[in-house]
Amino acid sequence: MFKWEYLNLTYRKLEDGGLLLVSKRRGRSNAMTIGWGFIGILWGRPYFIVAVRKSRYTHRCIEATKDFTVNVPGKEMEDILQYCGTVSGRDHDKIKELEIRLNMSREVESPSISGCPIVYECKVNYKMDLNPRTLPKKIISEIYPDESFHTFYFGEIVACYKRRVR
Amino acid sequence: MFKWEYLNLTYRKLEDGGLLLVSKRRGRSNAMTIGWGFIGILWGRPYFIVAVRKSRYTHRCIEATKDFTVNVPGKEMEDILQYCGTVSGRDHDKIKELEIRLNMSREVESPSISGCPIVYECKVNYKMDLNPRTLPKKIISEIYPDESFHTFYFGEIVACYKRRVR
Repeated sequence: MFKWEYLNLTYRKLEDGGLLLVSKRRGRSNAMTIGWGFIGILWGRPYFIVAVRKSRYTHRCIEATKDFTVNVPGKEMEDILQYCGTVSGRDHDKIKELEIRLNMSREVESPSISGCPIVYECKVNYKMDLNPRTLPKKIISEIYPDESFHTFYFGEIVACYKRRVR
Repeated sequence: MFKWEYLNLTYRKLEDGGLLLVSKRRGRSNAMTIGWGFIGILWGRPYFIVAVRKSRYTHRCIEATKDFTVNVPGKEMEDILQYCGTVSGRDHDKIKELEIRLNMSREVESPSISGCPIVYECKVNYKMDLNPRTLPKKIISEIYPDESFHTFYFGEIVACYKRRVR
């Protein structure tokens, strides 16, 4: 089910431009650009760990639905990545404004983004709030000057597939 | 510095046979086989997250040195993987007993294992103890029947290289 051959493209995009994290709340889907994340194995299953600041709208969405998708962007999606990394889903319906086409997921409630060549469907089995007391001071001053700390969501990869993209 | 092209072999071995986690305490090095772990990006840097049960000798080593190496095993290391996944460093000097040759690391105190084609040198910047109260019951009963919970060590990958192996 989980394909390690997807890793290279996933990590390359994660590092260069970002991936699109899609979650849902009250029937409305929201996309957020992420540049940090982890893929690995835990408890005998593949997992995607995403880090979401408590202040983000995505945090509320994942708390509501307890699942998310991670979408590896295709070509010519720079504008989407840019917009979804700047604007909050609290004030904007980014999906509508950008005319993003969504696809129903196979195993989770959050949909995926059409035109993305690789999709990870993830079900949150565990979460951990960052504990700032044990963080190095350098990281606090660089990353958390406003004390907006991350929650780590451990999403079991319950489906993962390639999609043909025009 | 960090090479994404190392991922495929690393994850293939992680899933099939395991990787070798090396740490050090009181001048003595210890190796432990791991089948779970995460590679990713956090705080703008590459990280390797390893999960170590509090009851393990490796837990004491990482607490002492605050660093570790992850070694991707080469061919014909099945016996080492088997032994280092069964026996505790508390009662055994596995390095000595198995006549494992160690190499000094470039950036951390814990050494690497000679004959391993890929080495990750990791410096622990953050750790989190698993909080069993928020874990699904299924995972507790399957993985933690003895309540020996994991600590997640977030190791910044400060060096990562390939080594020619005979």
